[in-house]
Amino acid sequence: MTNKGILVVLSGFSGSGKGTLVKRLLEEYDNYALSISMTTRLPRPGEEHGKSYFFVTREEFTSTIERDGLLEYAQYCDNFYGTPKAYVEEQLANGKDVILEIEVQGALQIKEKFPETLLLFVTPPSAKVLKERLAGRGTETEEVINKRMRRAAEEADSMALYDNIIVNDDLEACVKYTHNVIQSAHSTPDRVSKLIVNLKEELNGFSEGE
Amino acid sequence: MTNKGILVVLSGFSGSGKGTLVKRLLEEYDNYALSISMTTRLPRPGEEHGKSYFFVTREEFTSTIERDGLLEYAQYCDNFYGTPKAYVEEQLANGKDVILEIEVQGALQIKEKFPETLLLFVTPPSAKVLKERLAGRGTETEEVINKRMRRAAEEADSMALYDNIIVNDDLEACVKYTHNVIQSAHSTPDRVSKLIVNLKEELNGFSEGE
Repeated sequence: MTNKGILVVLSGFSGSGKGTLVKRLLEEYDNYALSISMTTRLPRPGEEHGKSYFFVTREEFTSTIERDGLLEYAQYCDNFYGTPKAYVEEQLANGKDVILEIEVQGALQIKEKFPETLLLFVTPPSAKVLKERLAGRGTETEEVINKRMRRAAEEADSMALYDNIIVNDDLEACVKYTHNVIQSAHSTPDRVSKLIVNLKEELNGFSEGE
Repeated sequence: MTNKGILVVLSGFSGSGKGTLVKRLLEEYDNYALSISMTTRLPRPGEEHGKSYFFVTREEFTSTIERDGLLEYAQYCDNFYGTPKAYVEEQLANGKDVILEIEVQGALQIKEKFPETLLLFVTPPSAKVLKERLAGRGTETEEVINKRMRRAAEEADSMALYDNIIVNDDLEACVKYTHNVIQSAHSTPDRVSKLIVNLKEELNGFSEGE
């Protein structure tokens, strides 16, 4: 309903299936663009520059911060991660809804700076299902799984600060529902302010013109 | 995503097509119930008690107010109009989304008392289209049309207080979009508070249980 896109920040527990959800949204609908993060950590096998991440040196990262080129950034285990601003702004101006998959702290940082951001939190229907999914991967030790469950318990405290809670039970239903939530957000008054202003002007014109 | 229904208050300019929109929503989807207003005015030809309105005496209306039986009420041209509370609460408890078609003042009254209400404002894409629609009915005098346009100009001032602005250009697209907006509203944190509380408890249980 607007020509300008929405910045959609998507967070969720490790094991919520948010990565697959984002992938399916991009495949299924042509109104989305994916924001790629910038990081100082080294690429892992199979990771491509400009696809998984923009891999940069610490100097490049610092200079991007200095020229206000990041929407948000954070440090984990000696590495920096951030969201380059230019690409997001360009895509939004082109009318694309830009999806950004980041963790809770970065999401709240962005919402504070850009209140018009749509924050979506992805969760399995229950903690039991979450634990089953994490264990089902078969690639993680019991210790890693427990660590992720503890982290999920912490992240759950921020769920109430999100705009919508996306329950990922059946993936395809979830893809469709998430798409509907994002498209519905296009019609909030702040996002159709131009339409409202035009209508008011036009209506006042008619009233005075009698 | 919740079992409890949402109270959906739908307002819009005379000529916005909101009546047809509500009718189509009720026909198309089985999760909606329509709230019927109570009034002290006399039935017009063709109007049925319990379908168009609940037609009551002034004494019945006053006694309903006194026992806090109305969600909101207002007076126009010596007649009272109000929304009976019992039916709405019963349907919401049954998981139905209850649609209530009322004008701006009543809508804002309800939102103040029940902030979890979803307020939708229906508008044609432009004031030009609105005027064409009002004139196209062929049943109204120029004077009545101008009066409605002036009233629309006043009502437009409250659009920013609604949750979503529904542009009614193509009716069928509008029916689908409105349905999606209402279903999306089911996943806001306040409406899934039970899910969040359960998840937190369950996650904390897992963390402590190690």
